[in-house]
Amino acid sequence: MKELEERIARDGQVLGDGILKVDSFVNHQVDAGLMDLCGKEFARRFAKLGATKVLTAEISGIAPALTTGLHLGLPVVYARKSKPITMPDQVYLTLAPSHTKGRMVELIISPEYLANGERVLIIDDFLASGATILGLARLAQAAGAKVVGVGALIEKIFEGGREALRPLGLPVESLAAISSMDEGKIVFGD
Amino acid sequence: MKELEERIARDGQVLGDGILKVDSFVNHQVDAGLMDLCGKEFARRFAKLGATKVLTAEISGIAPALTTGLHLGLPVVYARKSKPITMPDQVYLTLAPSHTKGRMVELIISPEYLANGERVLIIDDFLASGATILGLARLAQAAGAKVVGVGALIEKIFEGGREALRPLGLPVESLAAISSMDEGKIVFGD
Repeated sequence: MKELEERIARDGQVLGDGILKVDSFVNHQVDAGLMDLCGKEFARRFAKLGATKVLTAEISGIAPALTTGLHLGLPVVYARKSKPITMPDQVYLTLAPSHTKGRMVELIISPEYLANGERVLIIDDFLASGATILGLARLAQAAGAKVVGVGALIEKIFEGGREALRPLGLPVESLAAISSMDEGKIVFGD
Repeated sequence: MKELEERIARDGQVLGDGILKVDSFVNHQVDAGLMDLCGKEFARRFAKLGATKVLTAEISGIAPALTTGLHLGLPVVYARKSKPITMPDQVYLTLAPSHTKGRMVELIISPEYLANGERVLIIDDFLASGATILGLARLAQAAGAKVVGVGALIEKIFEGGREALRPLGLPVESLAAISSMDEGKIVFGD
């Protein structure tokens, strides 16, 4: 998506170790209008999947998942990384490595909000190794729900996430795909 | 706001210890359409304050802050509760007690996204004791920004947050104000 690529080219910062800092419009400060455009574009691309729910992981997936849910008219569930006191004792829980935290994190969903037979569209900010998205897919499967598509704002092609997701046999869409960040230069690919 | 009060009356659960569970439409599963309505209503009520930025705290403030930012055409900043590797070493940091976690949590904002002279509208999911909102106001003040208003989806009047915020001398708006949850019965007040 042109608007997102242009913003990444202008305001994204390559920090080394494969980290792309987009804190000025996605991850700490959020450009609400841009997120709305991204949600609208996801809604367009995934309109025909018959999704019944949008699923993401806290924290930075919430903004694009919310705008996608808004444009599709669907509720959004975000997997928690720690169990709040309002959650029942029995939960769906899996572990996924966090790239930016450098450790494993828990992904937890209450069975109250993910039911057998639901059709789940997974939306996240980044598709890097695919580990978080695979974790969300495991939670959906544990609940008896069917994942019908995966969307990420930004794909880091060189981290192989799309390959990792291939066994799921799903449509995978990213709105900006980066093929290289060598020497701090962001190159977009397909 | 009628739509929010009706939803709380229908789907909110009083868990005891002053905890109102709204996980089915605000905190774990999010009703995107309802959040959009709430953001529109905040935008209407705060339209004349000349705000330049919406400020909230992760995690559950993100959804209403995002839709408010969308309707006001403003960027949204969410204070982080742990410092990601993309954040510089020098940050604004304060501590605030978390009601649902039962301990103090850090609220951290990068100086990159909160500047001297900004006019900040604070939006959060709950106004209970006011501690989180006071923490956000301290961060804004540390940055030399001026807080111009405070909005919360749900106010628990009996926890005294409005009184705690009074010294700030700000307009405080809640979209649903609960005066009592005794014996599990939710009573709305003014």
